[in-house]
Amino acid sequence: MLKRLNHVAIAVPDLSAAAAIYRDTLGAKVSAPQSLPEHGVTVVFVELDNTKIELLEPLGEKSPIASFLDKSPSGGIHHVCYEVDDIIAARDHLKEKGARILGDGEPKTGAHGKPVLFLHPKDFNGTLVELEQI
Amino acid sequence: MLKRLNHVAIAVPDLSAAAAIYRDTLGAKVSAPQSLPEHGVTVVFVELDNTKIELLEPLGEKSPIASFLDKSPSGGIHHVCYEVDDIIAARDHLKEKGARILGDGEPKTGAHGKPVLFLHPKDFNGTLVELEQI
Repeated sequence: MLKRLNHVAIAVPDLSAAAAIYRDTLGAKVSAPQSLPEHGVTVVFVELDNTKIELLEPLGEKSPIASFLDKSPSGGIHHVCYEVDDIIAARDHLKEKGARILGDGEPKTGAHGKPVLFLHPKDFNGTLVELEQI
Repeated sequence: MLKRLNHVAIAVPDLSAAAAIYRDTLGAKVSAPQSLPEHGVTVVFVELDNTKIELLEPLGEKSPIASFLDKSPSGGIHHVCYEVDDIIAARDHLKEKGARILGDGEPKTGAHGKPVLFLHPKDFNGTLVELEQI
């Protein structure tokens, strides 16, 4: 079911400072910041040879990463995103296995314009898992 | 400086249960467990199309992931590992930029038999970063 690791998302309190660390200290290629108001984040993509890191800064009042940064003010790894071929088939398989889908269980349009679902971290060893249909 | 994402490491309290979740619930290819007593972990590799997840269970009295699991008993993402071409050049560049190298600053032989360094999470938005020379 799992194909590629699409990205690792890291929540950060200060996106320009975080982007500078990845660009200048770690010597990686980083994108310009992109505001995604409908997802409550501003994102910078760190482009690696085989995948990417997404640095996420809260945007707006109801950012989905606000509570994470309340608990971890300096930031931290927020989730991992795996690609799947068929997100409905993946969801039905996961439910059959007893895994909990967050929200109403229906795929939403993710930050890359593709259908995504998030899985309950308690069912995956404390790891928030995003699935994205490619 | 950063090349590929070599792996994402997830600390887990029960390796066989975690491997079963990745194999049966998420439908990924998982390796047999490998004990690495010199690194204080037993590891299962989850093979994705472009990188891998390493599930780590503590092994022995002085496991480097024991304190992490004391704080997060159900597990969580422990570190990310990036590949570099020259670990000494990377280290010297990082020190020049003010980033802190864990331990004595000299590369050790990592779990894959290659030279590795760990960087202080406080310098990277709460993310423990491993660098591995490939």
